[in-house]
Amino acid sequence: MRLLSYRANGTSSFGMLTADGTGVVDLAARIDGVKDLGDLIAQQRVDEASRTAESGMAADHALGDISFERLLPRPGKIICIGVNYGGRGAEYTENRRDAYPSVFVRFPETLVGHEQAMLRPPESEQLDYEGEIVVVIGTGGRRIAIEDARSHIAGVSLGNEGTIRDWLRHGRFNVTQGKNWHRSGSIGPWLVTLDEIGDFADLHLTTRVNGELRQDDLAANMHFGIEYQIHYLSTFVPLDAGDVIFTGTPTGAGARFDPPVWLKPGDVVEVTVPEIGTLRNPIRDEQTH
Amino acid sequence: MRLLSYRANGTSSFGMLTADGTGVVDLAARIDGVKDLGDLIAQQRVDEASRTAESGMAADHALGDISFERLLPRPGKIICIGVNYGGRGAEYTENRRDAYPSVFVRFPETLVGHEQAMLRPPESEQLDYEGEIVVVIGTGGRRIAIEDARSHIAGVSLGNEGTIRDWLRHGRFNVTQGKNWHRSGSIGPWLVTLDEIGDFADLHLTTRVNGELRQDDLAANMHFGIEYQIHYLSTFVPLDAGDVIFTGTPTGAGARFDPPVWLKPGDVVEVTVPEIGTLRNPIRDEQTH
Repeated sequence: MRLLSYRANGTSSFGMLTADGTGVVDLAARIDGVKDLGDLIAQQRVDEASRTAESGMAADHALGDISFERLLPRPGKIICIGVNYGGRGAEYTENRRDAYPSVFVRFPETLVGHEQAMLRPPESEQLDYEGEIVVVIGTGGRRIAIEDARSHIAGVSLGNEGTIRDWLRHGRFNVTQGKNWHRSGSIGPWLVTLDEIGDFADLHLTTRVNGELRQDDLAANMHFGIEYQIHYLSTFVPLDAGDVIFTGTPTGAGARFDPPVWLKPGDVVEVTVPEIGTLRNPIRDEQTH
Repeated sequence: MRLLSYRANGTSSFGMLTADGTGVVDLAARIDGVKDLGDLIAQQRVDEASRTAESGMAADHALGDISFERLLPRPGKIICIGVNYGGRGAEYTENRRDAYPSVFVRFPETLVGHEQAMLRPPESEQLDYEGEIVVVIGTGGRRIAIEDARSHIAGVSLGNEGTIRDWLRHGRFNVTQGKNWHRSGSIGPWLVTLDEIGDFADLHLTTRVNGELRQDDLAANMHFGIEYQIHYLSTFVPLDAGDVIFTGTPTGAGARFDPPVWLKPGDVVEVTVPEIGTLRNPIRDEQTH
């Protein structure tokens, strides 16, 4: 099942893709007392959506008639794992494997949805992409064992963990300000429930800019796998339904080129995992007045 | 005016201290359509609380009959500025002034209220205190000018930006996991509106552990002043009413002793600024089963 947040006929809603992928069934109209997709997950009512799907409901909207919104309008914690793929040692001056993940945080307003523009601010020309697999927590927990981690996941999606590179280095110890520019990243297009996803290690992530392949790696090459991430993060903070984990990006971002290649207005970035779909975002200059 | 979140007679509420500081006036009962203190701020209705205060209302509860809760039950973004006070070069091996602040993020569930226990988890003995002045945003904005910053503040409070020191160094680039242990820090006891606060530079912050002075500095010694912090942060992300800024801690945390002195169960930490009050928290071991 593919669940999404969207806008149609002037109203924000949430729904699911039809089996053939051409239409959207409005779930807000069919499931009472649920405000949005995150609320559906928090209330542990994804199964109700599933039963609606099984009934072979006709689409309320053609896919072309909706506009996508951020996957979750009101996400919980958004936790990001730093560069987390190996096998490309030549791109790094230092390639030791760390003992623990690098962890940072994004705020919701830094993320747009599928097909929405990611913004380059006037303060910097160094907007860069980072294609990622994204996990949404379905069942909360603390100190979750690695072998239980998968059962805590509502589904997977895609993210573009867009970064303003020069601001990344403002702080000596933290990357926060490079990772939290307004509408500088994206999440979507939809949440794919785990019945459609096999071993995470087999997921094959690619990122293309204007059709040119820039990132290409298997989740099997993650230094810290998705199940470990859930275990590790939940050691210190409770994970809750609706929390989001950006699981790390492969090498190949624009910062790794010599000279670096930054995103510019008119570019289009596509992040793809075949089992999930493609998250596509055009780049625009922010209009500040 | 001093606004607080509290629990009395089994119900969570918000209110204000009476002028003599001995009682609490229940504002939830008097201001319609406001869910909690953060909501009062977000709805720009602090003035209604002020008019209630001016009417010389009698207390609904003696101060001793309420239990404090986290200053804001549902805070917005919680943004923290790294070590931000100068003048103690001898404690640092490297004392250069950075060009920009170090910025990191805490999640709400990592903070308790006044008089609530801060928890030492079984995973570490390195729980440490960091006394701080805390700012709560009252009026949102983006790219706020330094000279306008004060007008965006709802009030100031106190924070203990409790840290698990060994986990601070897990990530090469970020301190997130050392700063986000469940109930490892605190915020409170109340929000003091700015009519009671003069120049921020004059605020004198002290932190005591079991009565022993450990941190003692003036906000005038901040590398990056409060107004600049609001300007800088709002450059990249919109600040919203209810967002919280931990403005940095002076030197003198337990990690700076040789050997380091960590907090242990039974310790009591007090963070004081005379114009604001004292935030007091006992330390307890977390019970994990």
